[in-house]
Amino acid sequence: MRVISYEEVEAKEVEEGSKIRIRWLNTGGSKNFAVRLFEIEPGGYSPHHSHSWEHEIFVLEGNGTVIGNEGAEAFSIGDMISIPSEETHQIKNTGKSSLKFLCIIPK
Amino acid sequence: MRVISYEEVEAKEVEEGSKIRIRWLNTGGSKNFAVRLFEIEPGGYSPHHSHSWEHEIFVLEGNGTVIGNEGAEAFSIGDMISIPSEETHQIKNTGKSSLKFLCIIPK
Repeated sequence: MRVISYEEVEAKEVEEGSKIRIRWLNTGGSKNFAVRLFEIEPGGYSPHHSHSWEHEIFVLEGNGTVIGNEGAEAFSIGDMISIPSEETHQIKNTGKSSLKFLCIIPK
Repeated sequence: MRVISYEEVEAKEVEEGSKIRIRWLNTGGSKNFAVRLFEIEPGGYSPHHSHSWEHEIFVLEGNGTVIGNEGAEAFSIGDMISIPSEETHQIKNTGKSSLKFLCIIPK
């Protein structure tokens, strides 16, 4: 058993100047999924892209918009966003503070 | 893509009078993991048990104690608790408010 604050896990800039940081929270243990904590600064956004793995996202802090195949949808704290595999998607921080969410993916 | 508040997902009492409610947040989509949101009322606790699947837990609100093979450890908001498969464990709400956490398991 291990208990750590997410702040003890190293935050890595996704790309230089991208306004997005990622922490891989479960570095050991789980065989078939990974839990990542993302922080997107105001004005920041993820690439508009698709891939073979699905996302299950839980919003911890802040406000944003997610763009999927059927348009844009606003979200806020306590929302769960499910993005199926191969759906093109993008997440934007539309608020004035940091947007924080967990994003769980298969591995 | 789907965006819903966790509060829109039905909360089920784990056992009658157990002070624990569970919501299965990703009912569709993900093939190999499940995201559950637990709420334990003050004074409530999970069974002291073990099983073949691991837990990755992210604490959303409240305070508690987790008991594992090497004793008890306190936790609070923003903590990540990793419980390997087969480790006997128990979670207790030691605070005065509801304890809320996400618990991700393989499937």
